[in-house]
Amino acid sequence: MSSTWGNKIKISVFGQSHAEAIGVCVDGLPAGERVDREELGRFMQRRAPGRNAVSTPRREADEVKILCGLVNDITCGAPLAAIIENTNTRSKDYEFLKETPRPAHADYPAQVKFGGFQDVRGGGHFSGRLTAPLCIAGGICLQILARKGIQIGAHIRSVGDVQDQAFDPMGVTRETLDRVKGEEFPTLSAEKGEEMRKRILAASAEGDSVGGTVECIVTGVPVGLGGALFGGLDGKIASAIFGIPAVKGIEFGAGFAAARLTGAENNDPYTVKDGKIQTLSNNAGGILGGISTGMPIVFTAAFKPTPSIAKPQQSVRLSTMEETELRVVGRHDPCIVPRAVPVVEAVTAIALLDAILDN
Amino acid sequence: MSSTWGNKIKISVFGQSHAEAIGVCVDGLPAGERVDREELGRFMQRRAPGRNAVSTPRREADEVKILCGLVNDITCGAPLAAIIENTNTRSKDYEFLKETPRPAHADYPAQVKFGGFQDVRGGGHFSGRLTAPLCIAGGICLQILARKGIQIGAHIRSVGDVQDQAFDPMGVTRETLDRVKGEEFPTLSAEKGEEMRKRILAASAEGDSVGGTVECIVTGVPVGLGGALFGGLDGKIASAIFGIPAVKGIEFGAGFAAARLTGAENNDPYTVKDGKIQTLSNNAGGILGGISTGMPIVFTAAFKPTPSIAKPQQSVRLSTMEETELRVVGRHDPCIVPRAVPVVEAVTAIALLDAILDN
Amino acid sequence: MSSTWGNKIKISVFGQSHAEAIGVCVDGLPAGERVDREELGRFMQRRAPGRNAVSTPRREADEVKILCGLVNDITCGAPLAAIIENTNTRSKDYEFLKETPRPAHADYPAQVKFGGFQDVRGGGHFSGRLTAPLCIAGGICLQILARKGIQIGAHIRSVGDVQDQAFDPMGVTRETLDRVKGEEFPTLSAEKGEEMRKRILAASAEGDSVGGTVECIVTGVPVGLGGALFGGLDGKIASAIFGIPAVKGIEFGAGFAAARLTGAENNDPYTVKDGKIQTLSNNAGGILGGISTGMPIVFTAAFKPTPSIAKPQQSVRLSTMEETELRVVGRHDPCIVPRAVPVVEAVTAIALLDAILDN
Amino acid sequence: MSSTWGNKIKISVFGQSHAEAIGVCVDGLPAGERVDREELGRFMQRRAPGRNAVSTPRREADEVKILCGLVNDITCGAPLAAIIENTNTRSKDYEFLKETPRPAHADYPAQVKFGGFQDVRGGGHFSGRLTAPLCIAGGICLQILARKGIQIGAHIRSVGDVQDQAFDPMGVTRETLDRVKGEEFPTLSAEKGEEMRKRILAASAEGDSVGGTVECIVTGVPVGLGGALFGGLDGKIASAIFGIPAVKGIEFGAGFAAARLTGAENNDPYTVKDGKIQTLSNNAGGILGGISTGMPIVFTAAFKPTPSIAKPQQSVRLSTMEETELRVVGRHDPCIVPRAVPVVEAVTAIALLDAILDN
Repeated sequence: MSSTWGNKIKISVFGQSHAEAIGVCVDGLPAGERVDREELGRFMQRRAPGRNAVSTPRREADEVKILCGLVNDITCGAPLAAIIENTNTRSKDYEFLKETPRPAHADYPAQVKFGGFQDVRGGGHFSGRLTAPLCIAGGICLQILARKGIQIGAHIRSVGDVQDQAFDPMGVTRETLDRVKGEEFPTLSAEKGEEMRKRILAASAEGDSVGGTVECIVTGVPVGLGGALFGGLDGKIASAIFGIPAVKGIEFGAGFAAARLTGAENNDPYTVKDGKIQTLSNNAGGILGGISTGMPIVFTAAFKPTPSIAKPQQSVRLSTMEETELRVVGRHDPCIVPRAVPVVEAVTAIALLDAILDN
Repeated sequence: MSSTWGNKIKISVFGQSHAEAIGVCVDGLPAGERVDREELGRFMQRRAPGRNAVSTPRREADEVKILCGLVNDITCGAPLAAIIENTNTRSKDYEFLKETPRPAHADYPAQVKFGGFQDVRGGGHFSGRLTAPLCIAGGICLQILARKGIQIGAHIRSVGDVQDQAFDPMGVTRETLDRVKGEEFPTLSAEKGEEMRKRILAASAEGDSVGGTVECIVTGVPVGLGGALFGGLDGKIASAIFGIPAVKGIEFGAGFAAARLTGAENNDPYTVKDGKIQTLSNNAGGILGGISTGMPIVFTAAFKPTPSIAKPQQSVRLSTMEETELRVVGRHDPCIVPRAVPVVEAVTAIALLDAILDN
Repeated sequence: MSSTWGNKIKISVFGQSHAEAIGVCVDGLPAGERVDREELGRFMQRRAPGRNAVSTPRREADEVKILCGLVNDITCGAPLAAIIENTNTRSKDYEFLKETPRPAHADYPAQVKFGGFQDVRGGGHFSGRLTAPLCIAGGICLQILARKGIQIGAHIRSVGDVQDQAFDPMGVTRETLDRVKGEEFPTLSAEKGEEMRKRILAASAEGDSVGGTVECIVTGVPVGLGGALFGGLDGKIASAIFGIPAVKGIEFGAGFAAARLTGAENNDPYTVKDGKIQTLSNNAGGILGGISTGMPIVFTAAFKPTPSIAKPQQSVRLSTMEETELRVVGRHDPCIVPRAVPVVEAVTAIALLDAILDN
Repeated sequence: MSSTWGNKIKISVFGQSHAEAIGVCVDGLPAGERVDREELGRFMQRRAPGRNAVSTPRREADEVKILCGLVNDITCGAPLAAIIENTNTRSKDYEFLKETPRPAHADYPAQVKFGGFQDVRGGGHFSGRLTAPLCIAGGICLQILARKGIQIGAHIRSVGDVQDQAFDPMGVTRETLDRVKGEEFPTLSAEKGEEMRKRILAASAEGDSVGGTVECIVTGVPVGLGGALFGGLDGKIASAIFGIPAVKGIEFGAGFAAARLTGAENNDPYTVKDGKIQTLSNNAGGILGGISTGMPIVFTAAFKPTPSIAKPQQSVRLSTMEETELRVVGRHDPCIVPRAVPVVEAVTAIALLDAILDN
């Protein structure tokens, strides 16, 4: 259960921040699919740290080594495994984390759960660095989905209280998605993006951090993925998205706003367009009764602010049970949302491909 | 995948609205646990329709027949199965639903997925009636959890734009939970409850419906349930909650609001209270890094407005691909949120017991 | 894990011998498949007790009530659940079984596992009666498979040291399978069948029982079901067959005999027949590297002798830890193998349909 | 499903014979367990090729690189991943295997299943080399089990028609197990071992191969592992053992011999020994009703002869559908049974640890 997910596609993510390597095993990829390594490299770059002023200056080489699963870059039906060797690991003493847990990190519950044996170096298995293997797996799934006419794109929907405009839930063009993916700071509105950067830099200057949301859209989805009750496509996507560290919420279509609407406002009327059954609006976010409707799937995920902040915080020494003041040192993204965008795309791709193969 | 959920506890929900019966099979309950049938009956009553003016006047007998899994009302380690026979099934012709799908219902995607073979009578397997077996399974889990000192309670957090006050995320007493559970219309504030009722009746009077949210709290949770990445307790709860029809979103702790906070605001500082490590606030909603912190687990789920409304709606005749006007007749809850409250408790209990047994 | 099996098809078996009912929930059946209730009834009859002198005179009504999953006898994509109400339950005191475990039954390990809370009445959840729900589920799968050109048939391969001839592993006609299925005592050779009956009656006369083997063949299997390592079709079938009480072994194709052969003897050479790739022999039993070859799948399962025998046996009183002599009273099949034949077919059908839908 | 197994312990095996690496990800190992790398290395050596005259002269370095999951050689609760880089990969052209499938190999069904995209180099993902990662995972599980007082040992039970004596099913000492494990050719009887070697060398001299069986015993098993029906410990072990390439059968305790016995002969009477409930015989192989009895678990697995033989064999050219004669060149074990012994131990350890953690 822990770091494995999926039904037809089985993803096993492994590694700790300061172990020899992090990586992923992907079982169940269909045979005969080409993996474009350059495209994968470009996708990985979108998640890589150190790309701009609002990101941690720490640089990871993040060179992906695909160990198996391919023959001449074509999937061969065997599990695909890939690793990233850890190089930039300043292995100073992290043991103090077992004594004084950092607020909003997994330190304290992990200490209890693993009896003090957890790897605390750099966040261990809880590190955001583990999203890199998710991007390897998801980046490959994205390539396979694209060949089936399915596009997945995400953008920063908000940082703090600065909001980007939303995707048109009725559909976005591939050009729009590609443009946003090409952005170092992926928003629909460049002005709002600029505001968000300022918001992040302001938080950073105060030794603080800030949260935000990521909106994701999937176009080209066939009708009929998912199923009733626990087989719902929304539940499947949600369970995968909550696998990303720092996610605190998810909503599909109108989501929490739908809870404030009436049925007449929220129900999407049916129409015929381009010879196909479509809806005039897409408050459903492309899913009804757990099943895809053929309209774009749209959801938004909430990310909490980066827990590691320079400001002093109150904690407790576990050995003496005395309160103490903690200062988290080191370089951390003052906002993880920009780098979370490709991770959301990756995880969504894994969930979608799983749903398609399961259909 | 479809109607089965769980790892240690396996829930299989079955039935259609107008089939002979609906029911549930629960595999993995620990042996030696007493099932109090009267308490279960009272719990089922909280979900039953027809209890008040804002609920559908349709009455279900909802008599639970436990078929197996008990000896003298004590669990025996074998799967527990229970059914509710369907009696109140006005079996008129529902075939028109295959021709003219109702907006915001599963009709259209189910028609495509199941090739027209799906049971459309009364919503079939997609009916809200399927939440009754969830309540049987969850009602039993609630009893087992209570013996372990774990209390689960929920209330209507909002209806339309009328908001009840929130649970104190630092904890609520069992008395408060019991009082709310005793309410026909479960809110913390009686006045807000009255406003919500009016909101629902107003929507109903217009042939419309309204959505809302349910907040749930779990107290007495041990530290250490769940795990990193896909093993997270939040992901587990989310995947179960999305199994409830009409859920469109979920957020833990501060949730989407956390995305607007800074780290200094959102991080919960550690302290020592009653000789235990606790936090001074609970924006985390009791879960960090996917693992329970020992603080109450708090989450809110968004429910869309009841899709069935009396107002005319636009749809399409599938055979001719012509637009048409649809009027949904029959008696439907103008707001499903009040009856969803015990369902959220039930599903949460299933997820929690699964997490505890998996630990 | 306990009483649930499958990936695409999920079977949850429930019930105890003396509970209100036994039954099964089958999730994942494709929609649009007709269930012929009469054919299912005839299939259930093949497993029913009391049909002949070598079977227990106890008669079960075994009336199958399908609760849901069908509309006009056509699968609708929702889980199918069916029950058999328990009527013939002489509910005398079985509590002594908790004090004095019967040899070769689950009594003792179940007592330890379930802390004395297990249902001991008539064997509880360990009763051979639980194979009836397996036959409901499998009987339906058999009908679906037959429409895909896949036939499954089994026969008594041996009772004690009396051996029936083996199926021709290169294939058997549907006529042969139908003829054997029509037999009250299903063997290929009528004479050997007669010998087996005598062997069983002789054991019975001595207050003893006897074991045997069941051979099963599957024809019309497409090439390519299953996969490498743990995804093997043989592993899948084996894990399902061991779900049948009293099974102690399974072998595919030449099986244990293959272990005595050389490669030149065991390897099945390829040829072309009827325009298709086939093998000249079928020592592989239709599976290579975990994947179906297109040749018939052939396997044999070993069943131990019925544990319940009239002869006195040595046991221990658990409360005093003193040895004691035990006499098992009641009516029991002196050999369960004849009634196990349709159960093997049923379970194989479940596994095969799962493999096909998973492909 | 394909190359992943387990419930509490999740094993994902990856790699192809000529890929960059083969390896395994093990999720769910308890935290705080020491991994003795030297002991693991010795265990891996028992499986390594080229150790004696009856094994392939091909030598693998088989150096295990543990990538993650440990801190100072102690499990940290995160998944453990380990790889073996492939060095000795004579990458000549294997493409002819897609044209002319080798009898008794997965070539033909894999060609159909994977549409010709499968990796045929050295057997690809179907290679016996994939048992090395199984040994890494299982070798670690063996160390953890040993600390719980559980010993697992196996030996060559037969090669062709030469039979070693069987383990005493009532129990064997750790000394005996250790002695057998120390043998280059692990048998109980040295003379029988010598005969077996001769049998293998004789087959080899004729360009042929020979099959055999491996018997495995587990001592120190607690009462109560497993469960009824599909939750049986025997089914769990069987599904894991069939994950080993070339396994064609498995039997527990008396197994197929039990099918020839009467109940009075087969039933194991209870007694009290050393203050514990035990049985006077162990025909059950330590499992009743799917649950461990506390007696040693004993089972035997049948391995077919190595499919790769020097003798000419009949096959078919797939492009022209013409029969052809095939000669398999290269160095292959004339009998895989000796090297399969530690693999059986490894897989059994994985299954046992999974059952214990699931309990």
